[in-house]
Amino acid sequence: MSQLADTPAPPYYAVVFSSQRVADTKGYANMAERMLALAQQQPGFLGVESASAGIGITVSYWSSLDAIRQWKSDAEHLQAQAAGRERWYEAYRVRIARVERDYGFERGLRDV
Amino acid sequence: MSQLADTPAPPYYAVVFSSQRVADTKGYANMAERMLALAQQQPGFLGVESASAGIGITVSYWSSLDAIRQWKSDAEHLQAQAAGRERWYEAYRVRIARVERDYGFERGLRDV
Repeated sequence: MSQLADTPAPPYYAVVFSSQRVADTKGYANMAERMLALAQQQPGFLGVESASAGIGITVSYWSSLDAIRQWKSDAEHLQAQAAGRERWYEAYRVRIARVERDYGFERGLRDV
Repeated sequence: MSQLADTPAPPYYAVVFSSQRVADTKGYANMAERMLALAQQQPGFLGVESASAGIGITVSYWSSLDAIRQWKSDAEHLQAQAAGRERWYEAYRVRIARVERDYGFERGLRDV
């Protein structure tokens, strides 16, 4: 399975979550895994891509701004957000963006 | 220095470049470093965030769609794009998005 999100044709929405974590991230991996599983169950969730090295970048894709708002205010997610600010993040930045165009490449296919 | 991009107030544009590389990435690091240096000199460049683990995610920020188009068609960048498809990428996805809202957190500051 590709680790690149298989999103539909634009327009759709992206949430770019960029973070710097503190040195001691005990408990972080479990929380992140749980939040990923939970996000995937939300209405309007389209996919997610994540990479971490120095900083972490997670881009989740959504069908609408309303779907993003609902996920942001999910009770368990709110708890995780608060724990993140208390324990795990040195800094983060959230950017909510409307994807207007996309294109890609796959070896052997070209021009997806 | 923070590795999170210090972007201005929205609206601005994000290019989310998500990639899977082939196993043998000889020459890739040099090209990536050169492209980063070159991108930073382009008109309308606002910042960049990058992380790689399993997949690579690079998000660059731009003042306008026109600035993105100019960077995409830069002669040296076009060569790098072609080399990427020939040598380094198994697959990639480019998403061009309009950042409509952003917020963040910094330890000791809160609510940037």
